[in-house]
This record gives sequence, C-alpha cells and structure tokens, in this order.
Amino acid sequence: MSGGPLVVAVIGAGRCGQEVGARAEAVGRALAEAGCVLVCGGLGGVMEASCRGAHEAGGLTVGILPGRDPQAANPYVHVPIATGLGEARNAVIAQAARGAIAIAGGWGTLSEIALCRKLGKPVVSLDSWRPDETVRRANSPEDAVAQLLAAIGR
Amino acid sequence: MSGGPLVVAVIGAGRCGQEVGARAEAVGRALAEAGCVLVCGGLGGVMEASCRGAHEAGGLTVGILPGRDPQAANPYVHVPIATGLGEARNAVIAQAARGAIAIAGGWGTLSEIALCRKLGKPVVSLDSWRPDETVRRANSPEDAVAQLLAAIGR
Amino acid sequence: MSGGPLVVAVIGAGRCGQEVGARAEAVGRALAEAGCVLVCGGLGGVMEASCRGAHEAGGLTVGILPGRDPQAANPYVHVPIATGLGEARNAVIAQAARGAIAIAGGWGTLSEIALCRKLGKPVVSLDSWRPDETVRRANSPEDAVAQLLAAIGR
Amino acid sequence: MSGGPLVVAVIGAGRCGQEVGARAEAVGRALAEAGCVLVCGGLGGVMEASCRGAHEAGGLTVGILPGRDPQAANPYVHVPIATGLGEARNAVIAQAARGAIAIAGGWGTLSEIALCRKLGKPVVSLDSWRPDETVRRANSPEDAVAQLLAAIGR
Repeated sequence: MSGGPLVVAVIGAGRCGQEVGARAEAVGRALAEAGCVLVCGGLGGVMEASCRGAHEAGGLTVGILPGRDPQAANPYVHVPIATGLGEARNAVIAQAARGAIAIAGGWGTLSEIALCRKLGKPVVSLDSWRPDETVRRANSPEDAVAQLLAAIGR
Repeated sequence: MSGGPLVVAVIGAGRCGQEVGARAEAVGRALAEAGCVLVCGGLGGVMEASCRGAHEAGGLTVGILPGRDPQAANPYVHVPIATGLGEARNAVIAQAARGAIAIAGGWGTLSEIALCRKLGKPVVSLDSWRPDETVRRANSPEDAVAQLLAAIGR
Repeated sequence: MSGGPLVVAVIGAGRCGQEVGARAEAVGRALAEAGCVLVCGGLGGVMEASCRGAHEAGGLTVGILPGRDPQAANPYVHVPIATGLGEARNAVIAQAARGAIAIAGGWGTLSEIALCRKLGKPVVSLDSWRPDETVRRANSPEDAVAQLLAAIGR
Repeated sequence: MSGGPLVVAVIGAGRCGQEVGARAEAVGRALAEAGCVLVCGGLGGVMEASCRGAHEAGGLTVGILPGRDPQAANPYVHVPIATGLGEARNAVIAQAARGAIAIAGGWGTLSEIALCRKLGKPVVSLDSWRPDETVRRANSPEDAVAQLLAAIGR
C-alpha cells in the first residue's frame, strides 16, 4: 500500500435536482473506477448521489457527518464518521482529502472549496463556485475526475 | 448583562499593506466604540491591525488561534485562545460571532465568509470577497460597522 | 503585555451542590485576584460558580461553549465563545489554558484532566478525579490556586 | 444496510510492548470477524497492532489522525482521515464509535474513555484505565469483544 489509497472529496449541497444528481453519480462512479476512496459530508443531495455512483462501481465511501448520529448518513456511505463538530467538519473533509470536486452547492460548498485551496489542494468545479482561476472548470463528470487526478499527480 | 456582549468577528489575511491595515484599525476602533467584543484569528495583518484599533479605543479583543501556542497571538489580543484545531478554528470564529466584517483577505477569509453565511450570519465586505449579493458592500470602516450592527439588529 | 495574560481553566460539572459551589466560587475569586483570565466550559454548576467568584473580584471570564448559542453561557461569562464543537470543545479548553483546577465533576471533567495532562499541563484536583499522582491534590480553594501558579511557574 | 456497519473504536497508546501488541492484534482480529469497522487514532503501538489484526482477518480499518498528513497512518489503516484537529480528534473517535475497547494506554487513552462515557457509550478495559465500575473489565481480547458487542446490543 505505497502511500495508501487516494482519498478524494466530493462536495455539494444536501439537496439537488435530477440533473445535478446524475452528474454527481457519474463523478462518484468515475472516482471508484479510478480506485479512489470517496469522502464527503455523508448527507443527501450531491453527497448521496456521488456515494451511490461510487458504491455501484464497487468503490469505498466515507461520510464525515456534522452531527452525532451515524444513522444520518445516506444509505451509500460505507463508513459513517459522526463527528459532532457541526460546520467545523468541513475543515476535516478538506484536510482528509487530496483534492476535491465541487458540484453545484451553496455556502457550505464554498467554505469547503476555500478551505481546500487554503490548504493548497486542487479543486475542480462542475457547475459550482469558482472564486478564482486556480479553481479548475470541468465540462463533464469524467473531465472533472481526469483533471483532479492530473492535478494531484496520479 | 441582558444577552451578554455583542461578539463580532473581523476576518482578513495574516499579512496586509499599510492602507488595508489602516482600514482594519479603523474598523477595530469603531467596533470598540460601539461596545462590541472583537473576535478574530489572533494573528498578524488585518487581525493585528483591527485588534490594535480596538485596544486603543478601550475594547476587548479575543484571538482564536489555529495553533497550540498562545504566544503566537498578536500583542493586541487580550484573550488568546490557542485551539490546536488548525483551519477548523475558522468555523469556531464563525460560530462564536454574531456577524463579521471581512477586510481584503485570501482563501481563509473566504472560508470564514462562507461559514458565516452558512450559519445565517450577516457579513459586510470591505474590499474583500463578495460571493453573492447577500454579502453587504461597505464604503468605509465606519460604514462597515454601521451596516453590520444594523443587520444584527442593534 | 509580556507573554500576555495567564489563562487558567476551571473544570467541573454543570450541576453541583452548595458546598462544591462555594469552593468553586472561592477558586474563581482567587484566580481573579492573581490576575488570571478564567476559561471554562461556560455552563452552570462549577463553571457558573467559579465565573461568579472571578466576576465579583473584577476578573475576566471566558466560556468555551459546546453548543451554537452564546446565550447558553452563565450570566458571569464575559466572553462567550459558542463553538458548535460538542465535546471536542473540551480539547480547546485544555489547549487554551496554561493549567487547570478540577473541582468535583464527572466524565467531562475527567476528559479535560486527561487532555491537559496529555498536553503536559499541570492539573490540581480539589475533590475531583486524581487518576495518578501527577495530578496534584489541594486542600482548599486558595491552596489549589497557589499550587497551580507554582506549577506554571508564576 | 440496516443501520450501517457497526463502528467500534480501539484506543491505546502509540507505543507498546510485545505482549500488549499481541492482545491488540487479537482484538482487531476478533472485531473484524464480528463484522465491525475498526476506528482508531491511526498511529503506532496499540493502534497499529489492532489494525494489523483486523486487516489480516479481512476487516476494514479507519484511522482518525491528529495531524495533517495521511502518510502518518500505520500501514494497516485502509482509510486514513487526517483531521488537523490535534487532540480534539479524540472526541471525534468517541463520537464516531458505538463503543470502545481500551488497551493499556496513557493520558490520551484516558481522555477517550472519559469522552466515550460522557457520550453514554460502553467501554471495555483490557489492562487499561478503569476510572469507575461502569467501565467493564475484560480478561482476554475475545472477552473484550464479546462484552462490548453485548453492551452495544449486538
């Protein structure tokens, strides 16, 4: 296990429409096929859709939950980590991952993008916030995964 | 002490030029004159300048430090809180404050703006990030303080 | 302000009887008279009694709260820091203080004693847990403060 | 996945002798055979030995690291979660697990026992701290796992 598995974050809102959900699912699938461990906030919306995609492709999913109840995790989270930290868990997600793919999303997503960038980690935006040009823009789920893996150096 | 003191955050980068520093100092002074407790990240740049302004106006300053050493606080922090939490301390600042004034700043500042907004707290931007129109724009340090206090309802 | 103020923690349960409360109040008073900033968990019981003692002696008190609401602080907390971190705030208290006085208390108190010792900080026990002999035993509130200040080197 | 996997913590010091290591390894093995996900602090000593045991029995291991570098995880951690939270990560371990087995250990271990008990979670001690009688005593690794699973209700 040289260096251990590649842990990658998928960040996005806890609710999303069908189109965004389909993109998140495709991102999760592509990450699993690339052998990555998917870490996310563990709740619904983009988080659930990306976990479903990874799960169906045989990947491993981790949910870093804000609350105290592991049962709050979506059903495709294999390892629920109930932190009880509230929004501070966003910093744990940014710290734990080698890089992140942001899909749509609101203020929580923006905070995670900023925390990743503060920590020097690459972020790819798929129809999400793009506060400056160091946040890469992707055209498709597959492009997002390819760009992130290239930025990480794998 | 009905409801306790009004705790307000000043957020901005750990290094800044003279002009930004002068604005941060004026924000700190105006917050102290309004009776607020100033909470910040406790380090240099905008944090130090705003604490200096508050200190000179007789206000109370609190530094929520990322590291383990209280001595890392700037000399105008009256209460250094060394958290050892790293960047997760940004979420503590957002949680502890009733609202925030952002002055210039980089990724850490953007993460704090987003965390404040996620928590439903008003943010005023003085030459800082303004991810959407719910982040108020101020023209001067005094205007920033006035807008924030109005948004908080004091 | 060479080195800043001496921040000292008082740890103990959120509910306590009259006798324990009187001892906690005396500890708070003695810490304030020694010029220390009192940091605690900000809630009731031992925390409230010690803050009342410090407040009445003109000292400064800080409450590192587990929840999201600063209004949960007892009325003698001058600076409420609502962290939203849950029990992880115990580690912030241990990190922020130069040492701690434990008064009676339950599991939360024991966790703070252990975290302080893990971080190499002196702890004095006043009718509280004493897991090993490196936790000092005090006979009175005044003795507890004297022993802690001696251990810190002031 | 009714209710998700059973996440159980193994807590103990970052260094240990051969005998303690053999017991930790046996605990890890027994937890994996019971279908549990093993969560720990991710470092050496008891943490590494228990992860090795779980790994060799085909179980899944998670390391909640105090620092920022996932490479600090021992080689038997399948999912390294670098938190950057310092000792506050002990509270995350206590929150994430349904219960804990403590093996030998120092102050960090005691803090985790206390945090688990504060959160109402069962703890079994195998030659570790036993602050009161609500912390169960085990005679062997297999007994520790059996007692913990019984206390959790599985």
